[in-house]
Amino acid sequence: MTSSHSPKTSAARSCLAVVLAAGEGTRMRSEKPKVLHHVANRSLLGHVLAILTEAGATRTAVVIGPDREDVEKEALRSVPDARIFVQRERLGTAHAVLSAREALAEKPDDVIVAYADTPLVTVETFAKLRAPLANGAAVVAMAFEAKDPTGYGRLIMSGDELLAIREHKDASEAERAITLCNGGLMALRGDIALSLLDKIGNSNAKGEYYLTDIVEIAREAGHRTAIAVVSEEEVHGVNDRAQLAAAERMIQDRLRQATMAAGVTLVAPETVFLSHDTKLGQDVVVEPHVVFGPGVIVDKGAVVHSFSHLEGTRIASGAAIGPYARLRPGAVIGPKAKVGNFVELKNTELGAGAKVNHLTYLGDARIGAATNIGAGTITCNYDGYNKHKTEIGEGAFIGSNSSLVAPVTIGDGAFVGSSSVITEDVPSNALALGRSRQVVKEGWAVEFRAKAKVSKKQ
Amino acid sequence: MTSSHSPKTSAARSCLAVVLAAGEGTRMRSEKPKVLHHVANRSLLGHVLAILTEAGATRTAVVIGPDREDVEKEALRSVPDARIFVQRERLGTAHAVLSAREALAEKPDDVIVAYADTPLVTVETFAKLRAPLANGAAVVAMAFEAKDPTGYGRLIMSGDELLAIREHKDASEAERAITLCNGGLMALRGDIALSLLDKIGNSNAKGEYYLTDIVEIAREAGHRTAIAVVSEEEVHGVNDRAQLAAAERMIQDRLRQATMAAGVTLVAPETVFLSHDTKLGQDVVVEPHVVFGPGVIVDKGAVVHSFSHLEGTRIASGAAIGPYARLRPGAVIGPKAKVGNFVELKNTELGAGAKVNHLTYLGDARIGAATNIGAGTITCNYDGYNKHKTEIGEGAFIGSNSSLVAPVTIGDGAFVGSSSVITEDVPSNALALGRSRQVVKEGWAVEFRAKAKVSKKQ
Amino acid sequence: MTSSHSPKTSAARSCLAVVLAAGEGTRMRSEKPKVLHHVANRSLLGHVLAILTEAGATRTAVVIGPDREDVEKEALRSVPDARIFVQRERLGTAHAVLSAREALAEKPDDVIVAYADTPLVTVETFAKLRAPLANGAAVVAMAFEAKDPTGYGRLIMSGDELLAIREHKDASEAERAITLCNGGLMALRGDIALSLLDKIGNSNAKGEYYLTDIVEIAREAGHRTAIAVVSEEEVHGVNDRAQLAAAERMIQDRLRQATMAAGVTLVAPETVFLSHDTKLGQDVVVEPHVVFGPGVIVDKGAVVHSFSHLEGTRIASGAAIGPYARLRPGAVIGPKAKVGNFVELKNTELGAGAKVNHLTYLGDARIGAATNIGAGTITCNYDGYNKHKTEIGEGAFIGSNSSLVAPVTIGDGAFVGSSSVITEDVPSNALALGRSRQVVKEGWAVEFRAKAKVSKKQ
Repeated sequence: MTSSHSPKTSAARSCLAVVLAAGEGTRMRSEKPKVLHHVANRSLLGHVLAILTEAGATRTAVVIGPDREDVEKEALRSVPDARIFVQRERLGTAHAVLSAREALAEKPDDVIVAYADTPLVTVETFAKLRAPLANGAAVVAMAFEAKDPTGYGRLIMSGDELLAIREHKDASEAERAITLCNGGLMALRGDIALSLLDKIGNSNAKGEYYLTDIVEIAREAGHRTAIAVVSEEEVHGVNDRAQLAAAERMIQDRLRQATMAAGVTLVAPETVFLSHDTKLGQDVVVEPHVVFGPGVIVDKGAVVHSFSHLEGTRIASGAAIGPYARLRPGAVIGPKAKVGNFVELKNTELGAGAKVNHLTYLGDARIGAATNIGAGTITCNYDGYNKHKTEIGEGAFIGSNSSLVAPVTIGDGAFVGSSSVITEDVPSNALALGRSRQVVKEGWAVEFRAKAKVSKKQ
Repeated sequence: MTSSHSPKTSAARSCLAVVLAAGEGTRMRSEKPKVLHHVANRSLLGHVLAILTEAGATRTAVVIGPDREDVEKEALRSVPDARIFVQRERLGTAHAVLSAREALAEKPDDVIVAYADTPLVTVETFAKLRAPLANGAAVVAMAFEAKDPTGYGRLIMSGDELLAIREHKDASEAERAITLCNGGLMALRGDIALSLLDKIGNSNAKGEYYLTDIVEIAREAGHRTAIAVVSEEEVHGVNDRAQLAAAERMIQDRLRQATMAAGVTLVAPETVFLSHDTKLGQDVVVEPHVVFGPGVIVDKGAVVHSFSHLEGTRIASGAAIGPYARLRPGAVIGPKAKVGNFVELKNTELGAGAKVNHLTYLGDARIGAATNIGAGTITCNYDGYNKHKTEIGEGAFIGSNSSLVAPVTIGDGAFVGSSSVITEDVPSNALALGRSRQVVKEGWAVEFRAKAKVSKKQ
Repeated sequence: MTSSHSPKTSAARSCLAVVLAAGEGTRMRSEKPKVLHHVANRSLLGHVLAILTEAGATRTAVVIGPDREDVEKEALRSVPDARIFVQRERLGTAHAVLSAREALAEKPDDVIVAYADTPLVTVETFAKLRAPLANGAAVVAMAFEAKDPTGYGRLIMSGDELLAIREHKDASEAERAITLCNGGLMALRGDIALSLLDKIGNSNAKGEYYLTDIVEIAREAGHRTAIAVVSEEEVHGVNDRAQLAAAERMIQDRLRQATMAAGVTLVAPETVFLSHDTKLGQDVVVEPHVVFGPGVIVDKGAVVHSFSHLEGTRIASGAAIGPYARLRPGAVIGPKAKVGNFVELKNTELGAGAKVNHLTYLGDARIGAATNIGAGTITCNYDGYNKHKTEIGEGAFIGSNSSLVAPVTIGDGAFVGSSSVITEDVPSNALALGRSRQVVKEGWAVEFRAKAKVSKKQ
């Protein structure tokens, strides 16, 4: 035994995560690289990087394919100080890891090798994977009990020690009976990771460098090896659109369970789609058929009715949203405010107890407390070139079908008559009207019908 | 055997239902008491009380926790003559039942003990439970075959006789192998129920009075005991939000199956949410993604298109609703009438063959037969303080984008020009207009664009 | 062995499909005949006929019940040259097939007997069923391994040869242990089909002529018989609304899988409803809760957001649709155009890069490239009798809440002021306005409130 391990705890140990994100994903049949496809409103790569950061990665290396500025950009968006390495040729997983040679050469305490297309892996798994390193293991493989092991690498064990990972096609009949399989992820002791990786050869049918060979190489060098067993779900990789949909479903189920455990009612959880960052307070009720885009926070006791679609929105406690409410980025809904059906809010603040009940578009607006916005109200915030602001005070009343031509300010307690076009500011407590008098032509319809019927026949 | 049973049939026997509704439900993580949470648009308590009434309970006692006026109110809403008893201390299930001592002292023929958090129990189960009482049994326990009996009380049987209910933690290895488990509900012979309950002691680890002890007490007194076996689904209790969602799903599935069996097409039943009281006629078609709130009746052959949301609504035969129709309480849709997309109706009657096809809000209105309401029409029924009525006759035509300022009446066959604001009554067959003449400024846009581009750059 | 088979391949062989569509379907509890109920927006009959045509049926005979013009019409809509035969009495399946005697008498190479209520059968299955005919078999039965064979006819085999089909009620104990069951469909050698069918008797309890008897009759005449084994799913018949819903689910799952395999992202496939003819291009993204009616083609890279409802629509590449977009027949969306929330388009063409973002109805319109349609715009295309067209040029800007009274033309680059009613054509680059000046009454609201409060109290 040559191992001499660090006595530091995992939390104190430096940890380099090497994330392999160079796969082309041809089975996705997409012009977009696989790792940029989304689940729960975040890219696969973004998920894996976020989990690694949460799991204590102190340094992140992302290995991408050539000419993949889009992948590089997404990696840096997630982890701004990530180091990007390009794998120029596809010569196997060990070759991919070695693309990050410079980062490995810095000898962090721990090295984690992760894949950008396995978004179901959890923070707890990375902790499990690293734990044996702190106890002197040189290589730790992620293991799972496969329902059907066909196709997976089998883990050849001797007690707790991992002797080798045998690819399915190379496995003997006896080895194929093994159901403990290789989940792909690996943790390596940082001081020797590079030297072990450099010993991996490519004398196999495909002439590729396989990361799994590192197990036997480590053992030959007298090091200890171990495994960390996880559920099969965590191993789920995304290679085609059906697997992408399956990953979405599994992540949604996790999000829904966690949401309900926190004291939120999801009437029909399977019809509610959450984002990775959705935050719902205690006693929030979400009815069937609701979609949460990114960036939504709903406070205690608010109700989100069916067929609502929310993103980039903050909803205060006791508010009622929908049905059929669309809240777009920048919507801020005050306590006990109400947003009703077929209403769209964008970059708009709604004061406490204010009501926007029907068929309304408010953009770039600020509405005071207890103000009532009538059905069919529209803020004309865009003139084809620029966007302008609408300000409405507290306790105001905007009549139905009104058009508020921004920039415009309506004072506290003011009234706007139905169907008015408001182009100039309205003082507090004033009534503003902008409409024509009604004219009636008696008996007109009789003649019209006669003519219309004739024209229809022709 | 001391039993001397009444020869009356179940239907003729008086029956006291004691409903235990005092549980705090801390695992719900809610400020609302558990039994007031909803499934299929009715509280858990409301469900159980309705089922008991249907099952022939002639008297209902509801045992609630201290200071729970909200639970009392809901109990009385469901069963106006229910007797409310407060359990001041939490000393076990037998103690809870004995809180209703006064009601038990009246010696009804049958006593049923039910739980307000098990809404899946059926009317048939209560009949099964009571049947052995009519044949002289003193105690009847609800039993089910558990897929995984861990945690449940085991039923110790001797032939058809129930000897004892053994709590999981008190069970021997052999008893733990039993899969026939205690479902909780119980039926008791009314003439002796109180005396048996009073014999239950609290000499156990927790110092509580357990209702399950009544089995052995009854047997020691020479009475017969029995069981009624039900499916595991009926035993489903609600203790957290995930179990609440599971109860919702099971109840929805029952409602959907019953609906389809009655000759209704649910294109995608798993996406349609019914209320406990939804009534759909033969050959009604419900497309995917529809939500029924309480109080909806849809007659024969009507179609409810996708993304519709209905509550407190009556729809006549042959009508077409949606997609994206929101019908609120008081909407009454006539035969072959049509409500189209992004349309909201509240407290509004729509005559036979009338059409409201697009982007409309009608509140507090009555629309005559064959009238056509144009896109974007809005009834201005609220002036900030009071609501007013809109009356439209038969065969009228309301032009698009019109505002009807209530109170207002529009006669049969009248026309309203597009974009008019109607503030005064319109006689039959008249044309009403309320809009400005069109003005055109030639070439205006060229100059505007030049200026707008400059301002955008700044 | 008397068999003398044609050496032609299946593709070259003439094939008569006899489709049994006379069943009343009483368990559907419907006034509509069973085979006219829909799955994936096509009747059961339409599905089966389309599959048979694709499977190479050169002639189609449809056997219907008396007075079923509606079924006849649907059959001819699917296969215009189908021959319709009426089964006047219900005397069993063989009797039903013999209703098409005239067609059988023409001695096609192959005869397929299919059922109009089994829409899950595939083109591949018909090929499998016909293959043994090309090799000389006289009768080929569709077989499946039943999970629970109770109720199904059992297939009595001797090696690859089918000896008999034994009805469940007639089967011996040993035969009931057989799990290989009769799937109903059958292929017959055309030159002898009629003579074999004519030999089927009715000496059984019900006095009916059973098609399954043909197996033994063929063998007695020295012919070869065979089976084609399919999955149990394909055998799924529709007899009640629950089975109709199950068929819908299975067909949807097939459509969803095929769609994803073609490179389309369905974020939540179980919430997306496709039509039998929906065509989605590579890298199209469909968010949760979307419904596709018939006739939708979406080109490469377009996005369909949640809660959208599309039918009879063509969407060009890069377009963004919804959420809450309703596209009705005749909507044609140009490249990179955008249709936003609560927007309905009917018979309307939208140019490249044009935008209709909110609360709009466009009917019978043509919108030029890069034109912006403001929120709340409505085309008044219907005067109660006739529909008229709206033409808008390129680069135009229609202000919010405008009403465009058709027929009307708006030129390239023109502006329409908010809330205008446009009744006359607008020249290119002109500004058109049609609204009243704003009037303000200072302090009005103070007095109004005082009065309104008084009236509310009364």
